[in-house]
This record gives sequence, structure tokens and C-alpha cells, in this order.
Amino acid sequence: MPELRKDIITREWVILAKERAKRPSDFLTDERQIHEEPEWDPKCPFCPGNEALTPPEILAYRPRHQPPNGPGWQVRVMTNKFAALQSAGEPNRREVGIYDAMEGIGAHEVVVESPGHNKSLGQMGVGQVEKVIWAYLDRYNALREDPRLRYILIFRNHGKVAGSSLTHPHSQIVAMPVIPQKVWAKITGVEQYREYREKCPYCDIVEYETRVKERIICENDSFIACTPYASRSPFESRIMPRRHQPCFANMSRIEIGEFAQILREVLARLHSCLRDPPYNLTLLNIPCSPDRSYDFHWHLEIIPRLTTPAGFEMGTSIYIDVTSPEEAAQYLREASCPLPQ
Amino acid sequence: MPELRKDIITREWVILAKERAKRPSDFLTDERQIHEEPEWDPKCPFCPGNEALTPPEILAYRPRHQPPNGPGWQVRVMTNKFAALQSAGEPNRREVGIYDAMEGIGAHEVVVESPGHNKSLGQMGVGQVEKVIWAYLDRYNALREDPRLRYILIFRNHGKVAGSSLTHPHSQIVAMPVIPQKVWAKITGVEQYREYREKCPYCDIVEYETRVKERIICENDSFIACTPYASRSPFESRIMPRRHQPCFANMSRIEIGEFAQILREVLARLHSCLRDPPYNLTLLNIPCSPDRSYDFHWHLEIIPRLTTPAGFEMGTSIYIDVTSPEEAAQYLREASCPLPQ
Repeated sequence: MPELRKDIITREWVILAKERAKRPSDFLTDERQIHEEPEWDPKCPFCPGNEALTPPEILAYRPRHQPPNGPGWQVRVMTNKFAALQSAGEPNRREVGIYDAMEGIGAHEVVVESPGHNKSLGQMGVGQVEKVIWAYLDRYNALREDPRLRYILIFRNHGKVAGSSLTHPHSQIVAMPVIPQKVWAKITGVEQYREYREKCPYCDIVEYETRVKERIICENDSFIACTPYASRSPFESRIMPRRHQPCFANMSRIEIGEFAQILREVLARLHSCLRDPPYNLTLLNIPCSPDRSYDFHWHLEIIPRLTTPAGFEMGTSIYIDVTSPEEAAQYLREASCPLPQ
Repeated sequence: MPELRKDIITREWVILAKERAKRPSDFLTDERQIHEEPEWDPKCPFCPGNEALTPPEILAYRPRHQPPNGPGWQVRVMTNKFAALQSAGEPNRREVGIYDAMEGIGAHEVVVESPGHNKSLGQMGVGQVEKVIWAYLDRYNALREDPRLRYILIFRNHGKVAGSSLTHPHSQIVAMPVIPQKVWAKITGVEQYREYREKCPYCDIVEYETRVKERIICENDSFIACTPYASRSPFESRIMPRRHQPCFANMSRIEIGEFAQILREVLARLHSCLRDPPYNLTLLNIPCSPDRSYDFHWHLEIIPRLTTPAGFEMGTSIYIDVTSPEEAAQYLREASCPLPQ
């Protein structure tokens, strides 16, 4: 019998179709499609030496006194060449007949995560992953100062199927002048849960999952990683701070190190268990809107792109998952997974 | 400058990235990937003569006195062999620790739209499309009698990219024991708009689009087809009844004919303009929940799968569209499009 499970924050249901149950081997990337990438690609705009192929850098971690926009950097951030939102101008919100429109202002940046062309976030040393997180934080803190902006999304597409057009490891940051409905739904969910139970639902999830253990992938002092009870897709993974913390930019220095460690480990386990699957990673954070304060418990979601959402998912936003989150967590937890220094 | 546009019902924003503007020729299916399918395929479980390969029929339109589960039918409905929800049992809603679950009861049916293997809905005669709509209505009316069910979704996946595993033209019907959040969002949107403006937003859209004309694809006495002002994807198309009508099962006989005509025409225009693009079609209807009544204005959405939603869309549910709805409507309106009888 299939099972319906509810996300207690968004109230979205998922269908767990156990009859169609699939194991990791059903999702493995075809070996013929894996081609080794070089460490450096002369044509890649994100490789060192090709800095002139991108817009000028906004931020780069590099040795002191080195000139910008040349090689030598460890992490480099610039405006996306094909930016979805543009920085100059005012929102100019207006009615168009019965509709609403505004200018597409904001920011759209690329975080090049390493000079190395062929090693993704899960294959880097933990020190390098920490630098990437510092770049997220530095850019987040800079962008949130802009009073025109309401929300900043940090995300990462890995693999062609997941919408990534360039192999070189990179994340993206989009800052926008509106709060997305998806974020509203989560904030409203937290608010309503708190009204009723006088607790944060994410705190409850951290406490419950730590206790029952069956969906835990890995954990450390500050974070847990687990598969959500109502996973929308096989091997969906979520990283949550144990401590109630609305904004990821409030992490302490120790927490930043532990976040780097657990993020790297979850990605390495996915890579090892599913042979480098395509995935989308999103960091769900509190809005940066200056005009009202919200409560939230930030977290990070990783959705491997192993199945194709179709008309049913589009019409209902109910996803059909074919791997139980408990089994997925067990596979990921038990995967042999050598981690580089 | 990109533009942000708001869906006035769901309050979802889309980004219209005019700088990346694309024309239909950018989206054409690669000719090398189009292979002619035969009119009849001996291995296809939906082709006449292969009825034994599917679960027994629930409904079939065929000449009187013909035995079931053999050839001769014009439209045939059966349970999906890989059903996401199953009919027997009670919902048995329960708490699981801090979470909510219930049994995956409901129905998951397949509507085989024609005995012909290789002609999709847009290429059929209008009489055949009308029969398909009668099958939707007959099954909808039968399923809504089940007091365990709250919502019935009718949808259609066309093409591999859109999640369809079989070529033979077919739709699907899923009846479920919950009201999906996506449907709630639309119903709430209608309610809130009505509270403020004392009108139905879809009625307003029909009136406004008929007047300004720039997003109209085609129209007849009972329906309009247009590209939504806040289209989420290039060539997204919507068909709406002109008359305020919460449930599609309340169509009059004349309206059914006109719905068949406009649906066939929109699909034929998409086929002609974009060379048989993959798409998902969903019929958004009022819930069938017996315990409360809702207001709605049913409509049908067609989303061609021409771009890949990725981390940004997943994190925000804000879609980036690269073709303006006005241009898309013009292309579709002006496409040369011979329609079979």
C-alpha cells in the first residue's frame, strides 16, 4: 500500500510508492556518461587564467597584494554573465491593467568554489568548503544592506540534468526585491506550528530525528543531516542547525567549520552512494527584509534529480517518491566514503 | 531590464528575462530526434488487440454488444498498472511521532485517448477529442461519489522529457484523499481577491485578456485560450471558460464541444509552432470534498517543457521565463495550423 506523508511545515503531502521501491543501483549514473574532466580546462571561463572571460570579480580570496581578475585566487565571486536580475534601478512597482509588475532589480552572482576544474564540493578538502561558506556569508552580508532587497537565495546546481551548464564547481546567489511564495509558505508554517505547539517545528524535527535515528545521515555537535520524513525525491537530504537560528549569517566561527564539515560529508556520501548524481542544493534562510522581522530556522536542502516531475507534480505539488527516506538514509549512512583532508 | 510579473491568484512572481529572449526556433525539437511512429504498434499495451496487457477496463466507448477488453473501442479507461494510489482501504490518518501520515488510497487511472498509436490529441479529429472529454467527465462523476476522496486531478504528459513513458496518446486521472497545497493556494487566492474586489480574478482575467487581445491564442463562444501574464515557461498556455464555473463537470453539452475544439486547436498550434514539443497538461478544478464548498473558476494549463527548472526555481518557486507571453501568443496565434476534421 502506498503511504501519504505530510511535511509538517509546508503541509505539502508526498506519496511514498513503496511498491515501486527502488535501490541506489537503479539510479546510478550510466558509467558511459561519466567522462573524466581535466583539472584545468583552457576553455572554461571559471578556470584560473581565464578571468577576462567573466565580468570583473566582486570578491576573491587570494594572497594579499595580488591584483584582481588574474589567477591566484582560492574562491572568486562575480556577477553572472547571464544575470536573471540586474543591480541598477528602482523596483518601480506598478499596476499593468489588472496585473502587478516591477523592474527585475536585484543581484545574480556566481561563486566559483575552487580554482580546480574537476572536483566538486563533496570532493574538496574541508578547508576549501569552509572558504566557500565564508564567501556565501561575505556576499550575503553585503547584499542584505541593500534596502531594495527582500530575499537572498544561495543555491547550487550540479550536473546537466539539474540545470548546470558549466562543470567547474560553482554556486549562485540571487538577491531579489520580493519574498518568494515558497519562503512565505515555510515562514507561515513555522508561525502556525508555533502558535499551536509553542515550539519551532524545525527544533522539534531536530530533537525527534536525533532521538529516533532512522533518517539520520550523519551529525556533529552543531548540525544534523537527515532525509526528510516527507521526502519529495529519492535521497533528498536536509542539513539543519541543532540550535534555533533564523539566519545562517549568525553562525559562530565554530559552527561555520562544522557546517562545512557536514555539508562536505553529505555531498561526498551522495557522490559515493549514487555515483555523482545530478542535484539541486538550496539554502533556505530568513528574508532579509528590513521592514518586518520573521522567525525561522534556517536549513539546507539537497534534491538529487533522479526522477522526472510531470503533470501530477505540477498540478498538485504532491511529489511521488519511490525510495523510502529510511532506506535512503541507511544507504547514505553506511556508504563507504573516503574524505580528503 | 528583466521584469518581475505577479500571478494575481497565487501571488507567485516570475522573472521575464527579456535579454535572454528566445524565439520558437530556439526551442524546436531536433529533427533527428523525431522518429515516425506506426499507426499500430504490436508491443504497445494501449494498442487495440493488446487489451490483455493492461488491467481490465473501467470504461470504454465501443459499439453496443461488443465484449469488454477486446478491440473495437474508441476511448478506453483502466487502472494504471503502476498506480501511485490504490483504491481499497480507509485513509487511516494517524500521527507518527511528530509527523502525519495516511494510507495512499484513491484512484489512478489511464485514459487511452484513441485506438491510433501515433496521433496525439492535437492531431485528432474534434469528435474524438470530445469523446476523450466525455471520458474525463464520466470518470470524474463516478470518482467524486467516493466520500474518501477530496481532489481529482486530470493531467496529460506528452513526450519523454515531460515524463511520459508511452507514446500512445493517453491522459491520467488521480483521485486523492487530500486537497493539494497547490490547489489550496489557488482557492485561497480566489477567495482573497473576491474579498477585496468582490469579483472572481479569473473572470477579471477573461474580461481583460479578451479586451487587450495581446495574449490571446484563440477563442470561441465559451472559452478563451491565452498565455498567462505571469507565464512560468515559454509558451505556457491556459484555457479558461468565459462563464464563471467552479467545476468542469458542470459544462453544458455545447460547452463540451467548444472545449474540445479549443483544446485541440491550442495543442495543434503548439505542435505546429514548436514542432511537437514535450508538455504537461493539467486540468485545475474545484475540490470534490463533500464536507465544504469552495468557489473556483476551473481552467486548463499547458506547460511546454522547454527549459530546465533548477535550484533557483526549487528554492523560490519563482520561474525564469525567456520568452515574453505576448510574443509567444502572437507566434501561436499566427502559426499556420491545418486542423483535421
